[in-house]
Amino acid sequence: MAVTRERLTRALAPKVVAVIGDKKASGYNWLRSMKEFDGPVYSVQVDENEIPGIEELGIPNYKSLTDIPDQVDFAVCAVPRQVAPFIVQGCVEANVGGVTLFTSGFAETGEDIGVELQNKIFEIADPSGLALIGPNCMGLHVPGLGVRFNRDQPAGVQGNIGFVSQSGTHGMNFSLTGAAHGLYCSTLVSFGNGIILEAADYLEYLVDDPQTEVIGMYIEGARDGQRLFRTLREVAAKKPVIIWKGGQTEGGGRAIRSHTASLASDQAIWEAMIRQVGAVAVHNLDEMIDVVKATLLTKRTQGNRLGLIAMTGGQSVVLTDAFEKAGWRVPTLSEKSYSQLSEFFNIIGGSYRNPLDAAGTIGQDPKHLDTIFDILNADENIDAVGMELSATFMARRWQDKPEEFDRLIGSLKRFMAESDKPFLAALHPSHVEEAAHTARLRLQEEGIATFPSFERAANALRKASTLAAVN
Amino acid sequence: MAVTRERLTRALAPKVVAVIGDKKASGYNWLRSMKEFDGPVYSVQVDENEIPGIEELGIPNYKSLTDIPDQVDFAVCAVPRQVAPFIVQGCVEANVGGVTLFTSGFAETGEDIGVELQNKIFEIADPSGLALIGPNCMGLHVPGLGVRFNRDQPAGVQGNIGFVSQSGTHGMNFSLTGAAHGLYCSTLVSFGNGIILEAADYLEYLVDDPQTEVIGMYIEGARDGQRLFRTLREVAAKKPVIIWKGGQTEGGGRAIRSHTASLASDQAIWEAMIRQVGAVAVHNLDEMIDVVKATLLTKRTQGNRLGLIAMTGGQSVVLTDAFEKAGWRVPTLSEKSYSQLSEFFNIIGGSYRNPLDAAGTIGQDPKHLDTIFDILNADENIDAVGMELSATFMARRWQDKPEEFDRLIGSLKRFMAESDKPFLAALHPSHVEEAAHTARLRLQEEGIATFPSFERAANALRKASTLAAVN
Repeated sequence: MAVTRERLTRALAPKVVAVIGDKKASGYNWLRSMKEFDGPVYSVQVDENEIPGIEELGIPNYKSLTDIPDQVDFAVCAVPRQVAPFIVQGCVEANVGGVTLFTSGFAETGEDIGVELQNKIFEIADPSGLALIGPNCMGLHVPGLGVRFNRDQPAGVQGNIGFVSQSGTHGMNFSLTGAAHGLYCSTLVSFGNGIILEAADYLEYLVDDPQTEVIGMYIEGARDGQRLFRTLREVAAKKPVIIWKGGQTEGGGRAIRSHTASLASDQAIWEAMIRQVGAVAVHNLDEMIDVVKATLLTKRTQGNRLGLIAMTGGQSVVLTDAFEKAGWRVPTLSEKSYSQLSEFFNIIGGSYRNPLDAAGTIGQDPKHLDTIFDILNADENIDAVGMELSATFMARRWQDKPEEFDRLIGSLKRFMAESDKPFLAALHPSHVEEAAHTARLRLQEEGIATFPSFERAANALRKASTLAAVN
Repeated sequence: MAVTRERLTRALAPKVVAVIGDKKASGYNWLRSMKEFDGPVYSVQVDENEIPGIEELGIPNYKSLTDIPDQVDFAVCAVPRQVAPFIVQGCVEANVGGVTLFTSGFAETGEDIGVELQNKIFEIADPSGLALIGPNCMGLHVPGLGVRFNRDQPAGVQGNIGFVSQSGTHGMNFSLTGAAHGLYCSTLVSFGNGIILEAADYLEYLVDDPQTEVIGMYIEGARDGQRLFRTLREVAAKKPVIIWKGGQTEGGGRAIRSHTASLASDQAIWEAMIRQVGAVAVHNLDEMIDVVKATLLTKRTQGNRLGLIAMTGGQSVVLTDAFEKAGWRVPTLSEKSYSQLSEFFNIIGGSYRNPLDAAGTIGQDPKHLDTIFDILNADENIDAVGMELSATFMARRWQDKPEEFDRLIGSLKRFMAESDKPFLAALHPSHVEEAAHTARLRLQEEGIATFPSFERAANALRKASTLAAVN
């Protein structure tokens, strides 16, 4: 029996939560992670030795799901694998909306006992319509409701990124590293072996979810490839979809069998499918974060002609190399632009041919940066603007002359507000990693897309520009 | 007239230094940068307004090079371009060993006046045998002697990396970012337009320099390509040479003309030449640092079969993808290894097929890590070992249980000492960037090669393994 949308919504946007089988040995991780949940949280634990510790946390404990004086929408199950089928049966009987099975040790082990237990769970859950997430997964993270599976994840913040992950680690890392980059999830699901609900189900939910503006996905395999393809085609036409396929290589394919019991399939087929549906493929966590960031924070362009502002001659060369290798062109500017630039640009130790080597000119008068932006905005040869921010300069300004740092940010925001052309900044951490980190946090507070290398900036903007749903 | 080796050595390993034309407006950058120089530093400045400020720094000033009561080996010249030819003439007359012309505004501007001035300097310097570095460059950095062109550069530390850079920025960034990664230069030269000495001259010096173990190079173009090719073939056979060619694209080629007046040439020709001579090509600063690090800190292997230790199932998949994409194979282990691993490995939420998903097993008993290392060391299917270090785990251990962090480092160092197989670690900063940074500093103090992503780790070890001089 298919899981209804109403049942899935109860599970993914729960009003009442239960944690089954949490214990001291795991530091009550599940119960503690739910501390910020925006509604009642119950514990189910039969072990008399564990109950006092749970009650000390202030969480009411029951011996059985059916004893809970509330309708549970979402349950987390962290019991040994042999017990898991009984818990799933209990969820069905208590009409729980959905349950996430953290428990692992199923088909992914390759052992007969693991396969048998997984089949048993499927046979209980499938006819019931229970929204079963997993097994062998971390489950659900909804920061706006305070649903978390890790205590470092954000709570009380309404994000706009839907994330569907077959891996708990990659789902968790996206939520944690993303938050460090100012990127927050609307709903994140880690679904592991995905024996009942799989990627397509979550995609269908997220495309209709008004909080979700962009969708990221880490996937190792699909039971029903045709259905995933159809779903992705519909979803990617409506919202940007960024897909990271794990198991892209022979060894990686072997690794996914041990991880989520997924079958390896030809990476070329995946890449072709992703292109065909109008989604975009990424290949690691950093690239996922970069492309999501570019999609959310920069404007779109159909063109590929870039105006580049660098701070030294050497950087102007390698910045240009990085962008052109990623598919951008760094063309000459219009004669009108050259005529305007020649009026004030310092060409001793500088150049304005595009790339612009501009530190000397901006150093003479910071207003020149606004003039440069205006010229690039008006130039018909240019579709987008990239800029090198020097971490050492930023670090010094941040400490010594905060007003100059503010002025720089003001110039960037003015261009972003006045121009339809996408803007992004590269901020290489150089040898001042901590200062660069502080500067990045300030820039991201201001909604400015920054990337830690020229290559990552170039790639992110390029991939964001190829998404079907945003063009 | 060719610059003799004796003259070049006087310039690049100076005993007496002079700075010509430093001034308050530039914060006495050159004089202050020489503060740690291991010998006498003199100033040459004729402007009466500037002299008191220079003398306040405790540096004796003279009106002319010939007035200095010492034989100057190395001079830095920071005067306006029109004055530069007279200073070069003065260096010739005073028998200075070598001079670096920071001054820019020559052929790279494309202006007639710039080209004329550059020709004039060439005509003065060429017949004299003066070791002229530049113009349009940052010159020399020898940390062991305290020669610097930037006050953040290290001094008083004897490095082992020779670096030849046509760009001042990339030379400076290599010295600064490298030092942040525990990598120090023996001798670094930024040579800009390179009108007298060019890359081949510095390579010939570095290959004979006993302090230099590995050579990095950033280059935009060569006046005499045949000579560079011959020199590189000789040098790369003796020491590892890592080459970053700037201007790899059409736009980048245009940028190098404005930067160092170099002519663009086909990137494919460069790549082929680099392969042919047994050097290795890199494409940005981060990759240069990564490959230098792998070359210095890891052992060499002719094989490409990797044993991989990951901390979660999801990471085991993407770690494998990253290494296989870079040309490594992550094969199955020997039956003997499987038999040994099956005795203690936790396969519920773990796997030992290679990649190894080992956090649960190591968590049960940290000694299991040593056993895993011993098994991989003995396994004939494995040529090298890579490991994921979890930044969140490291951050927690670093703070809460330093003895566990120490034990982990002990296990890594034991394997590195006992095995002939290269070892490297990936430490993704995740959402704990500052803690990851602290952990990395500790690991690099211990001589352990770490990289901030799986891709960078895989690429660095692969490229280091292809160097002619180390195989």
